[in-house]
Amino acid sequence: MARDERGVTAQSADFSTWYNELVIKAGLVDRGPAKGTMVIRPYGYRIWELLQAELDRRIKETGHENAYFPLLIPQSYLEREADHVEGFAPELAVVTHAGGKELEEPLVVRPTSETIIGEMMAKWISSHRDLPMLLNQWANVVRWEMRPRMFLRTTEFLWQEGHTAHADEPEARAEMELALDIYTTAAREFAAMPVVPGQKTPGERFAGAVETLTIESMMRDGKALQAGTSHYLGTNFAQAFDIRYAAADGRETLCHTTSWGMTTRMIGAIVLTHGDDRGLVLPPRLAPHQVVIVPIMRGDSAAAVLAAAEQLAQNLRAKGIRVHVDGRDQTPGWKFNEWEMRGVPLRVELGPRDLAAGTAVLVRRLGDDGKQIADLATLPTTIPAILDDFQTYLLARATSFRDEHTHEVDDWTSFEAAVATGWALALHCGSPTCVDEIKACTAATPRCIPLTDTPDSGPCVHCSSPSAYGKRVIFSRAY
Amino acid sequence: MARDERGVTAQSADFSTWYNELVIKAGLVDRGPAKGTMVIRPYGYRIWELLQAELDRRIKETGHENAYFPLLIPQSYLEREADHVEGFAPELAVVTHAGGKELEEPLVVRPTSETIIGEMMAKWISSHRDLPMLLNQWANVVRWEMRPRMFLRTTEFLWQEGHTAHADEPEARAEMELALDIYTTAAREFAAMPVVPGQKTPGERFAGAVETLTIESMMRDGKALQAGTSHYLGTNFAQAFDIRYAAADGRETLCHTTSWGMTTRMIGAIVLTHGDDRGLVLPPRLAPHQVVIVPIMRGDSAAAVLAAAEQLAQNLRAKGIRVHVDGRDQTPGWKFNEWEMRGVPLRVELGPRDLAAGTAVLVRRLGDDGKQIADLATLPTTIPAILDDFQTYLLARATSFRDEHTHEVDDWTSFEAAVATGWALALHCGSPTCVDEIKACTAATPRCIPLTDTPDSGPCVHCSSPSAYGKRVIFSRAY
Repeated sequence: MARDERGVTAQSADFSTWYNELVIKAGLVDRGPAKGTMVIRPYGYRIWELLQAELDRRIKETGHENAYFPLLIPQSYLEREADHVEGFAPELAVVTHAGGKELEEPLVVRPTSETIIGEMMAKWISSHRDLPMLLNQWANVVRWEMRPRMFLRTTEFLWQEGHTAHADEPEARAEMELALDIYTTAAREFAAMPVVPGQKTPGERFAGAVETLTIESMMRDGKALQAGTSHYLGTNFAQAFDIRYAAADGRETLCHTTSWGMTTRMIGAIVLTHGDDRGLVLPPRLAPHQVVIVPIMRGDSAAAVLAAAEQLAQNLRAKGIRVHVDGRDQTPGWKFNEWEMRGVPLRVELGPRDLAAGTAVLVRRLGDDGKQIADLATLPTTIPAILDDFQTYLLARATSFRDEHTHEVDDWTSFEAAVATGWALALHCGSPTCVDEIKACTAATPRCIPLTDTPDSGPCVHCSSPSAYGKRVIFSRAY
Repeated sequence: MARDERGVTAQSADFSTWYNELVIKAGLVDRGPAKGTMVIRPYGYRIWELLQAELDRRIKETGHENAYFPLLIPQSYLEREADHVEGFAPELAVVTHAGGKELEEPLVVRPTSETIIGEMMAKWISSHRDLPMLLNQWANVVRWEMRPRMFLRTTEFLWQEGHTAHADEPEARAEMELALDIYTTAAREFAAMPVVPGQKTPGERFAGAVETLTIESMMRDGKALQAGTSHYLGTNFAQAFDIRYAAADGRETLCHTTSWGMTTRMIGAIVLTHGDDRGLVLPPRLAPHQVVIVPIMRGDSAAAVLAAAEQLAQNLRAKGIRVHVDGRDQTPGWKFNEWEMRGVPLRVELGPRDLAAGTAVLVRRLGDDGKQIADLATLPTTIPAILDDFQTYLLARATSFRDEHTHEVDDWTSFEAAVATGWALALHCGSPTCVDEIKACTAATPRCIPLTDTPDSGPCVHCSSPSAYGKRVIFSRAY
């Protein structure tokens, strides 16, 4: 197979086409038959499993328990919270027939589970001793997508959704912040994504939430991607589903609830954060293969080289490294291209001359430090550090990229220039009409009010009315 | 809360009511709002997670990769394999509307994924080098249930479904057997269920299969429960979905496929295999809490006792034991009843006098060896062995129970007596009409032809026609 058959459009030539081709050709995903659905192939699913393991560990360490709630929700449940149904109604998939008959009440395929979990929490919670109730679910959800894109916007996706009930607002707000911390850490330390934790403006809140926190991340085309959200739902769902408890003094009191989710969209985010013209660049902590060994097999020495490659793989596995030996009947060059395209962080080339010399050739995926000759015997000791460095480097590189493409702007011309290539940090009046005008001119929308930024105020960058929020807002085109 | 409020109907009084009450009261599960759906609560979901971890490890060790396929399948896909659609049509839930519009083609909520995976395999497989293709999926499925029972028959359940494609029949049959081995081992070693691996008779095969293997297990009421199945699908789905490969000689050849699944039904099976009048009895390897420590807290010594309990828990956790300290404000007796009902394998009671003496009181869940006084300091060393013994004992006890309730029978009177309390091992003619007559008289059906039993033949136990299969068949009432 020639390079061009497997090659993808260069990122620098057409970013959008590059992404669409790459996720398919790298074997991450394929299109499903029903509109907007995706098949997550083993190479993509493994990334999800690795992220999932880390999230699940942190979710459990912080006292949450996993449970599973039904996929099919009576349509009337959605209608009990007015904002919620308004937000989700256009995206629902509805089961009207089952068991050969028309149902008396249609069932919606869950787009999210606040309603059905609210119904069950109301049944389970009676006393303050039942609180806090800290639940998490790993599940699939369906939201009908008019403009699907693999991983980023799909009719069905996988996620975890945390749902908690608390005695009062401060405790529920602390929970919302805790969940966002888990996401921030997972995104930074595992996906090497320098996410910005922030507050959503009212127009960008989850349907039914009092407050939504988000982590926003910059992709390599300068657009923002929302990588995880955490909501304080106030007593909205508690009222709709009658989630009450008897306080210590006996008073019947409404619970304060939260919900928070991170999805398979993260796989797309990793592609868009780190990838380059040659394909994927996977952060080692989430790479299905952290190391690929390509044995250079020629004539008589082939068996010895393959055996040495397998032995090295075994020694690396003993150190906890995920390693793959590519013994296929293809040329080394073909394999190099393949594994570069698929984003393996580190390639080890091992040929007869290397073997004789007790060395191997190392090539980092970015290829920026060329081919390194390394001592074969010490690789199981040196490779873990090389992978750690690569992980650190990817986060640092993405952070520099984000910072170089983020501009604090105070006038409209600078704003337009900033959002053409990245993020604008601007003061905004908070008016929905002003937001619509900005969007119409530039396609940029308010992504978040960064949590850690310093207070600021002044005239709105677009309409010059007094600024809202007491801080600057990140505006950006977004996925 | 008094004992009777939490208590369940005794198993010996009414087996069916005992089960229905117990799974709810023990906090394993709750009823979902849509007919036949269940909410798997944290205590039940944890059992599933522990089984899942073991299955997933074994599935990966044997070369399979996890992937994820869409929930929603075009209705026409099901119709491509005649037996398959006939088997599943009555159980389908159908999405007819989505995104606010009626769909051009209805989508079924997957009842199983042979069709959609077949469609994708056809796309991915072209050469013999692509084979075998060994995939597994963890997912939810929906089959409309007219007579639901929690865990055993629910409209939605969780499972893993393996789907593989092979170059020829022997390889595909070997795969079917490998999957059954994984299930047999998981059921015996983790669930302590002495399952019998066997072949399904043609009338009990999966819709679309050439051959179905099963593991059948005896519940404490003598009924059989199918705990996992593995199917050789021949070229049925390969033909329906055009799954072909170019052989080494270039010839276009149909693949041979398999599928195999194990479900959340296993949680119900564990309850029905080991439970007793006082509630659940959980095998240690799948118990959310393997040990519960009940500190006996009185007056001044309460703090010291609780601290000692927490210290013991920490030492046990360091040994990999799942341990829970029950520090709630309830009487010790209340807690003893609660944890017995919830099936915790080992209870440790720790009071001020124990603490002073450097001892603790141990009570195994079955209570059959009374209260044991043990040396507190050595518990982290002795408890792992106690749990192992308990695990072994549960399997041995269930095996004895099964063997005592299994009878080789050659006449109709003995057959009726055998299936009234357990299993009959009988010769059968293989006629579907004869099966129907047996079922009408006794409610018993052919469960499987045990794989390891010795050849046998003679007249059918019911109609005296010559026996089929060359072996005896297990007949039993079944879940």
